[in-house]
Amino acid sequence: MKQNWKPGTLIYPLPAILVSCGSSDEEYNVFTASWAGTICTNPPMCYVSIRPERYSHAIIKRNMEFTLNLTTEALARATDWCGVRSGRDCDKFKEMNLTPEKGVKVSSPYIVEAPLSIECRVKEIVSLGSHDMFVVDVVNVVADDRYINAETGEFDMKRAGMLVYCHGEYFGLGNRIGHFGWSVKKNK
Amino acid sequence: MKQNWKPGTLIYPLPAILVSCGSSDEEYNVFTASWAGTICTNPPMCYVSIRPERYSHAIIKRNMEFTLNLTTEALARATDWCGVRSGRDCDKFKEMNLTPEKGVKVSSPYIVEAPLSIECRVKEIVSLGSHDMFVVDVVNVVADDRYINAETGEFDMKRAGMLVYCHGEYFGLGNRIGHFGWSVKKNK
Repeated sequence: MKQNWKPGTLIYPLPAILVSCGSSDEEYNVFTASWAGTICTNPPMCYVSIRPERYSHAIIKRNMEFTLNLTTEALARATDWCGVRSGRDCDKFKEMNLTPEKGVKVSSPYIVEAPLSIECRVKEIVSLGSHDMFVVDVVNVVADDRYINAETGEFDMKRAGMLVYCHGEYFGLGNRIGHFGWSVKKNK
Repeated sequence: MKQNWKPGTLIYPLPAILVSCGSSDEEYNVFTASWAGTICTNPPMCYVSIRPERYSHAIIKRNMEFTLNLTTEALARATDWCGVRSGRDCDKFKEMNLTPEKGVKVSSPYIVEAPLSIECRVKEIVSLGSHDMFVVDVVNVVADDRYINAETGEFDMKRAGMLVYCHGEYFGLGNRIGHFGWSVKKNK
């Protein structure tokens, strides 16, 4: 049986991303966001939606750059903590033993402990209500070579232990079901 | 060691969503998208990015409505197949044994086999390059009561067996790590 619910935000599973920002040690901050995703393949563009009252909102608006750091099971506690605490009250990098490293193409730092960091430059800020959508160009990707398959050059997300956020709960990746296109190959 | 890669679309894990559209039996179609997510909590808004050459692009532009159907491990084969095949060549609902049911607040059908369907009305279409971003208002949610916890009223995504799409591969949900905010509660 089906129930009708009032409109809500129920698209899942999602990543839980550590967004790092700021252009100097004193300004550096990091927070967690799941309202984030890819909006265009070519050119590579993505978005993050951020509440205006969040401490990092003003930092990003000032610098118009930030970095999306993908997270893993090993980073689960830091990921959750950075989503609950505010950079107004503490140095989240220090408290969570995260290491900020100077960005390559942007002023914002990336997180050394993250398997993959996506450097972003803001193109547009769209006010929607509770959240502002930051529409960005991807300008660089920093990848940890521990998870790159030496033969194929592919980044192995299963081995990296990617973290999944699903309707208020964190999970690891489960059983591998198949590769994109497997349903057609099996029929041949 | 870190490697720098050229800009790319690497935000993962993501949902693999069955997008259903069309306002009559003859027009009904369904395709798979992962460039989709929540962009605002209040009002509830989301987006899907679609290549203009995709068969459903014109159908959605005509009706300005569609439905996002979340997918599960049980729907993995249909999800992959609907992402590879085109509605120009076949009736994907029939081929994959998916049941279209008349929408509640929109003309597009929802998929009965999906655990959760999100009815959307298009507010704006933004051309970005390879993809057009459809910015939408959520107008209704249809939930399968098999996965609703009778005590809490919560939708149990773990029990529904949500499907995860991660860099070209499909996975199930793995180990539950914790609830949003657990890192702070543990410290008390």
